[in-house]
Amino acid sequence: MTNPVIIEVTRGPKVESIHRGAICVIDAEGKTVLSLGDVETPVFPRSAIKAIQALPLIESGTADAYGFGNKELSLVCASHSGEDEHIALARKMLKRASLNESCLECGGHWSSQAWVMRHQATLYKDTPPAICNNCSGKHTGFICTAAHCNIEPTGYIKRDHPIQQVINEALQDVTGTHHGEDICGTDGCSIPTYAIPLSAMARGFARMGAGSGLGAERAKAAKRLLTACMSEPFYMAGTGRFCTMLMELGNMRLFAKTGAEGVFCGAIPQFGLGIALKCDDGAMRASEAIMAAVFGHLMPKDDPLQEGLATLANPSVMNWNGWAVGEVRAQLPA
Amino acid sequence: MTNPVIIEVTRGPKVESIHRGAICVIDAEGKTVLSLGDVETPVFPRSAIKAIQALPLIESGTADAYGFGNKELSLVCASHSGEDEHIALARKMLKRASLNESCLECGGHWSSQAWVMRHQATLYKDTPPAICNNCSGKHTGFICTAAHCNIEPTGYIKRDHPIQQVINEALQDVTGTHHGEDICGTDGCSIPTYAIPLSAMARGFARMGAGSGLGAERAKAAKRLLTACMSEPFYMAGTGRFCTMLMELGNMRLFAKTGAEGVFCGAIPQFGLGIALKCDDGAMRASEAIMAAVFGHLMPKDDPLQEGLATLANPSVMNWNGWAVGEVRAQLPA
Repeated sequence: MTNPVIIEVTRGPKVESIHRGAICVIDAEGKTVLSLGDVETPVFPRSAIKAIQALPLIESGTADAYGFGNKELSLVCASHSGEDEHIALARKMLKRASLNESCLECGGHWSSQAWVMRHQATLYKDTPPAICNNCSGKHTGFICTAAHCNIEPTGYIKRDHPIQQVINEALQDVTGTHHGEDICGTDGCSIPTYAIPLSAMARGFARMGAGSGLGAERAKAAKRLLTACMSEPFYMAGTGRFCTMLMELGNMRLFAKTGAEGVFCGAIPQFGLGIALKCDDGAMRASEAIMAAVFGHLMPKDDPLQEGLATLANPSVMNWNGWAVGEVRAQLPA
Repeated sequence: MTNPVIIEVTRGPKVESIHRGAICVIDAEGKTVLSLGDVETPVFPRSAIKAIQALPLIESGTADAYGFGNKELSLVCASHSGEDEHIALARKMLKRASLNESCLECGGHWSSQAWVMRHQATLYKDTPPAICNNCSGKHTGFICTAAHCNIEPTGYIKRDHPIQQVINEALQDVTGTHHGEDICGTDGCSIPTYAIPLSAMARGFARMGAGSGLGAERAKAAKRLLTACMSEPFYMAGTGRFCTMLMELGNMRLFAKTGAEGVFCGAIPQFGLGIALKCDDGAMRASEAIMAAVFGHLMPKDDPLQEGLATLANPSVMNWNGWAVGEVRAQLPA
């Protein structure tokens, strides 16, 4: 099955590039609201499911034991830009659990955001340490959970470590899937990533937002995590980042989380809707624009959010003189 | 027409992302050697045709008047990384023509290469000036030509400026196409870019490499430019860049030039072959890998270049711990 074109990128009078992909929206009862392209072949969710991976942090009592509030929980679900505030908060969390950042096994890297990297260049001579990894909040959550549960954290990134096992159990429960080694890849931050159909990811985020189809404790934990992310969108990504801007615009009504290689998951809790999409080619410019378009498609036509969503769904292509020379056009059936 | 998958990107046991595209190879007699996907719909060549755009610099006598050698001519055909050596050479060229870099109309930007940008961050507080634009060599060539020909350089980026007209004439002649306003977009550096079929770009580079189908003077200028690029591949791109690595590997046998949005043009002058390809989605990781694979396909199977080409065609996907977690796989019919 060839997925449809979901994004056109124009230059002057012509379409210059196209992006194909698949999109799935499921409601709280498990009914398909929107299905475009192949939503059943498993794909790696990458960072888009960090909120699900954070459930054990809440359910184990770790978050309460260390007094983690909305900012900390948002950072745990984040792919952050490595801004000073992100790093400071991750360090504060580790301190609460009497842990050292040398326990982090995610590897370090320069920020994906050019302006942050230029700032980092004034702080670090070589590659910044693991605490600057965009996943350092998630990893901090992992080792805090280990510390609270008296589990040895060393090797917590491995598939057979108790931390990864409890995360995998939560992920299977929420998405209604079964994960064997045959669908297991290694993520950018070295933890396992399991390939899951978009339909299952969308179902999972419908459940996370609505609390349906989950046990009472899990439903409560899910609500707490999505609320934290929507309350503190800066800690979920960073200054000028798409997830942050979208959730700031949404004002507690929209949840959205990007993953690498063109994946996006989201939820509209008030309508019980879960969303999952992937661009075939992994392009983030495409996954971002189409995600905004999907939210626009699902929100009421007269909702004041629509103007902001339309802007995010159709950004201009700028050149080095700051001229708008084309546009990114999200293509959704009306 | 849906273009075929030309690149698969794997992670662990699964294909994670795919890239579609079209490829055309034409020989010096105009015969099609390889055609994959839609090679007749016009696409923007972007920076991939800088060597053709540099013909007037030679033909007008400008290059000789200012004593431009291989390094300067390579820089004129370059999308360089903005390394200190690139900037110094562009400045030296402007000085030869008694021009000031304030004449450059391409706009400034931070380097596309993270390590260069971090170095630039120690030199510039705000966005670096136009001389740091990856196209500053090309623009320097334009205004040097204007200076030598007593043409007022102001506005040289506009479609109706004499410099752009003479470039467009050369481009139409070499590619055998006709360019009206209806196929004209604005490039990243603000000059016109005309949509051309891949088949015409490939024909153009076959002619550039073989000297066939061009007037005697133009054939000589073309040979001089490709030779300059192959002699000085660092000035065509920069440290660790694909075009530079490929031409270093090729050792005067392979010419290759990337363009934005997944375009690549190339030539194997000894066989009279011209190559043009575009990835539908504009991804450079895909256009680079498939370009190496196309060279591998066209060179003799027992050529010592094959090992290096195979490495460039199938790079590993690395994670933040430096683990190889997947691979980019070029897909060409055997």
